[in-house]
Amino acid sequence: MSLSRCHRVRFLPEGAWVQVLPSETLKDAARKIGIEMMSACGGQGTCKKCGVRVLSGKCRMGMDLLSPALKARGHILACQAYPEDDLTVEVPVESRLTGAGALLRHEEIAVPGYESGPDRYPLSPLARKVHVTVDPPTLSENMCDLDRLLKSLRTHSDSPATPTISLPVLRKLPQLLRANDGKVAITIVHLGDHDEIVQVDPSPQPHPCVGLAIDIGTTTVTVYLVNLKTGDTLQRLSTYNEQFVYGEDVITRIVHASRSEENLDDLRQAALRTVNGLIDQSLTAEGYAPEDLSCAVVAGNTTMTHLFLGVNPKHIRLAPYIPAAVDFPPVKAGETGLHINPQGYIFPLPSVGSYVGGDIVAGALSSGIADSSEMRMLVDLGTNGEVVVGNEEFLVASACSIGPAFEGGGITCGMRSVPGAIHRVTIEDKGNRIHLETVGDEKPIGLCGSGLVEALASLVRSGALDRSGNFSRDAARLRITDEDNDPEFVLLASEETQLCRDLALATSDVKNLMRAKAALFSGMQHLVTSIGLTMADIKRIYVAGAFGSHMDIRSAVEIGMLADVEASRHIVVGNSSVKGARLCLLSQEALREATSIAAKMTYLELSVDPTYMDEFMAANFLPHTNLSLFPSVSAQ
Amino acid sequence: MSLSRCHRVRFLPEGAWVQVLPSETLKDAARKIGIEMMSACGGQGTCKKCGVRVLSGKCRMGMDLLSPALKARGHILACQAYPEDDLTVEVPVESRLTGAGALLRHEEIAVPGYESGPDRYPLSPLARKVHVTVDPPTLSENMCDLDRLLKSLRTHSDSPATPTISLPVLRKLPQLLRANDGKVAITIVHLGDHDEIVQVDPSPQPHPCVGLAIDIGTTTVTVYLVNLKTGDTLQRLSTYNEQFVYGEDVITRIVHASRSEENLDDLRQAALRTVNGLIDQSLTAEGYAPEDLSCAVVAGNTTMTHLFLGVNPKHIRLAPYIPAAVDFPPVKAGETGLHINPQGYIFPLPSVGSYVGGDIVAGALSSGIADSSEMRMLVDLGTNGEVVVGNEEFLVASACSIGPAFEGGGITCGMRSVPGAIHRVTIEDKGNRIHLETVGDEKPIGLCGSGLVEALASLVRSGALDRSGNFSRDAARLRITDEDNDPEFVLLASEETQLCRDLALATSDVKNLMRAKAALFSGMQHLVTSIGLTMADIKRIYVAGAFGSHMDIRSAVEIGMLADVEASRHIVVGNSSVKGARLCLLSQEALREATSIAAKMTYLELSVDPTYMDEFMAANFLPHTNLSLFPSVSAQ
Ligand code: FES
Ligand code: FES
Repeated sequence: MSLSRCHRVRFLPEGAWVQVLPSETLKDAARKIGIEMMSACGGQGTCKKCGVRVLSGKCRMGMDLLSPALKARGHILACQAYPEDDLTVEVPVESRLTGAGALLRHEEIAVPGYESGPDRYPLSPLARKVHVTVDPPTLSENMCDLDRLLKSLRTHSDSPATPTISLPVLRKLPQLLRANDGKVAITIVHLGDHDEIVQVDPSPQPHPCVGLAIDIGTTTVTVYLVNLKTGDTLQRLSTYNEQFVYGEDVITRIVHASRSEENLDDLRQAALRTVNGLIDQSLTAEGYAPEDLSCAVVAGNTTMTHLFLGVNPKHIRLAPYIPAAVDFPPVKAGETGLHINPQGYIFPLPSVGSYVGGDIVAGALSSGIADSSEMRMLVDLGTNGEVVVGNEEFLVASACSIGPAFEGGGITCGMRSVPGAIHRVTIEDKGNRIHLETVGDEKPIGLCGSGLVEALASLVRSGALDRSGNFSRDAARLRITDEDNDPEFVLLASEETQLCRDLALATSDVKNLMRAKAALFSGMQHLVTSIGLTMADIKRIYVAGAFGSHMDIRSAVEIGMLADVEASRHIVVGNSSVKGARLCLLSQEALREATSIAAKMTYLELSVDPTYMDEFMAANFLPHTNLSLFPSVSAQ
Repeated sequence: MSLSRCHRVRFLPEGAWVQVLPSETLKDAARKIGIEMMSACGGQGTCKKCGVRVLSGKCRMGMDLLSPALKARGHILACQAYPEDDLTVEVPVESRLTGAGALLRHEEIAVPGYESGPDRYPLSPLARKVHVTVDPPTLSENMCDLDRLLKSLRTHSDSPATPTISLPVLRKLPQLLRANDGKVAITIVHLGDHDEIVQVDPSPQPHPCVGLAIDIGTTTVTVYLVNLKTGDTLQRLSTYNEQFVYGEDVITRIVHASRSEENLDDLRQAALRTVNGLIDQSLTAEGYAPEDLSCAVVAGNTTMTHLFLGVNPKHIRLAPYIPAAVDFPPVKAGETGLHINPQGYIFPLPSVGSYVGGDIVAGALSSGIADSSEMRMLVDLGTNGEVVVGNEEFLVASACSIGPAFEGGGITCGMRSVPGAIHRVTIEDKGNRIHLETVGDEKPIGLCGSGLVEALASLVRSGALDRSGNFSRDAARLRITDEDNDPEFVLLASEETQLCRDLALATSDVKNLMRAKAALFSGMQHLVTSIGLTMADIKRIYVAGAFGSHMDIRSAVEIGMLADVEASRHIVVGNSSVKGARLCLLSQEALREATSIAAKMTYLELSVDPTYMDEFMAANFLPHTNLSLFPSVSAQ
């Protein structure tokens, strides 16, 4: 029977052939030759992100849930397709993860006073390198190697405490002290209660002491390579989190990890590969070796931190939603597999609870909301929209389930902000006039988050979309297909794009986006109300997250995603998590502050409050059913 | 050519055949089938301990340094013999290490007040096990697993500090807390500056918290398995240090270890195998698993500690004789390969310098000499005879190069204290009447240390040996062979022994033993004199070491090995090193005391003082040239 033999699949446009086992899907086959495909559902056939076009040959389908329109064009879901024949398959650009490990553009947003230098905290980095000359021993001065090293260290350091030394370093010490007339560079990591010597190099060793600030996001991983002596950030690199192939959102990944030890390790390794890839690239760029790195601060949401450390996050998902830990000890790099000096240390930033992680603590630190006497807010826009409100006296946080809509998830033409993504949209005259800009000026592939926000705002402004999210009957470029009763607004015809279909925004997409923005806004609103304030009391709103940093704030206000306050109160801060990690890397005081921020932050669970659902429903309009909350928009 | 092919060797009395490569010696061949041979020189052909008898076939000799008498009996050195033929070879009992890993008899010497319980120090063991029930989480009591564990720990413990947790334990925590209604046993190790949770077991877990006191001697390794809650010693096991095959003394082993990383690892692994073998045996005897053990205190001389930790001891041997470290940090068991919970900790006891190690510090601790207001001495009899003198205010130590004579090294019929060893000797009437006792009442093989001491003392007392170590012309049982001009006293004819030759004590043996005892006595004497005292000022002399514990003190005094003081001042204490390690295991205060003992102990190098050589020469008599030092002996 044909099922029992191997088939060959040719993937286009690469033109690469690969052997496929009977048990493997087309998606598995593509992975084998390095084609990573979109996979929000982890290959369950539900996210419909993995469409491919079969040009020749036959497949058996595990499930088939594509729309008739796509099927008519020969599309199938790669994660559900088992070859029954030799095949030729085209993987369209919208189904590709643009190659796992592809670097993302990392646009740095300078926010005065909190990223360019460790201004707010004294420079007291977690690791430092001390150059000393250790006197040779004599019969009368016959102290052991370690004691002579420590003695010479004391003359070069104001730290009174004697550091410990890790065993592998001690093992090499006798040779090192005799290799170059006793000239050595000692790398010391500060572990809070004590210091540890984690590296001794022959000196002169040209490299400065460098460290890593790492943000492990569900979607994106960012690594800063930082000079610990000057505070300069030498490299800033971002890429997709390879855990993506196990599912787009945190819950799918927890489910996968909970199934077996092996699965948990899959996820750990995927995050590790992602981070290590960025580390290697940044080291190569600066001409350093992994051994030059002896400390890393890691910020991530609670699940990401668990997975990175190989701790089972299972109970984060199951009531009563309990993480294994929120405050993690510094961990030997060798125990994690991070590609730095194995004797070095990883400092995971503390979480607050299952849904408010070290990334938010880092953001609260770097934005300085916990430092100020005035009331401020941090909004971190990701798959979860986390919101923190407070001042130097208290901090309250909530997590709003925005979902992946603004990251392109569940939106027909949604995509991430990579070349070809439409990020600027102006629509005028009921849709008759359209102006679009893409990332990298490339031929369009889809709409990224900022493009979606501007599209919605423009559509409403132009009169093509009403406040409840339905297209006007007289809007231009509308198409109503028979089969799905889902009118769609065609932004571009297929031939103007890189796609094999039109680039359109369906009514169902609009409703998805509205639910997402309503979840965020009602969360912010609920949090502020629950502490007896109004939005007007919030003096600054820091908008964080990669998506947030490209977003037009006014458009976001117009669709009711962000509060209608003076424009100057909204401050876009980019990746506040990695910036907080960097501050901790450069200042032991900042790290202590992060711990105290985590301790004092209270988590407010939205879903348990019955009024929240009412607020969410009320926000499910453009901008809101209560227009008094949006005075400038209603006046417009 | 016959050299280029493999030959077969049959070893007797086992009767086992083995293939031998052209590059392998008979000694290598014997190892391959598990016959470990004596090897004081590490196979260099100089110790002459590896004699075998070739019954058929031919060998090529790398070197041949045996006495004509032995050669005449067909003896050759196995370490120098390369088979050129198929061979039949007999390995006589005196050339065997009695099987590496053979357990030694461990006779416990109870010394009131310092071994039966942790009397001198409060019971505050380095590890403890706490049984708690961790409340399940609820939506309102939603602390993370770790925090709930720590909370329940606080209610069961008076320790105010919060312990850290090792990552692999944290990884398993969520499952463990839910496995048995939250009932768990938490194992905590006290690391001085903080505590660490190194194990969480489902509870009820029947095993008490146990730990190890380990003494790694150059010759013998001893392991105590100790109940950390009650202080009871559950098992006491000893065996030969497998490093023996790389040479009998410390220097030979350092030379081997210094040659390459691989060699260093050979020695590390050999010690590790020895210790792990004893651990496994003690665990099996008590029905425990390695995971039940979370801490071990290791006492060893400085070289043994270096080798056990894999630290190169090279510079201990080279002027100016510098160890890599004297104060070692607690080390994760997993980093050492010790067969206990890999998250547990090893506490190496601190050394004083290259020639005074953690074993002596442990001995000073257990004998209590650093506690007392009166002046006391510790004499540890091994290959190095270490001597410590002092009181609660100061401690001075020296190492006397006794050499291996009293352990059987370099003595024709010398051997260790195993079954068949003569350990009691009475010789009367110029050698005419002899009474001998062997260990285990077995047919004699040779003389162990205590037998050698008694033989010398008896020979002098009986008039068969004069004070300068020459046999009287009229002594009975004397044999003067032509070839070596080395008169020997025949204790037993070949047929009364297990040997294929007579059991005799040669004049050269006597001179070796005299040099050894002179090195010890002059060291003790020099140390006491150098601090302005006389032996009479020393109120107690603790005689430690396995050999010391079977030795007849009076005989040792008569030959001038120990000082001629009131008999009651000499106190035989057995293995004071493992006992000190045990005290540290049971009391954090004792461990701190060990560190302070190491810090306050001063090392006095004998060889740099010109008067020491004079004292050594003066002591090279039986008992001494200065008879006023031995009043009771001269009065005898
Ligand atoms: S539908 Fe195929 S990966 Fe989600
Ligand atoms: S002479 Fe053979 S091992 Fe020493």
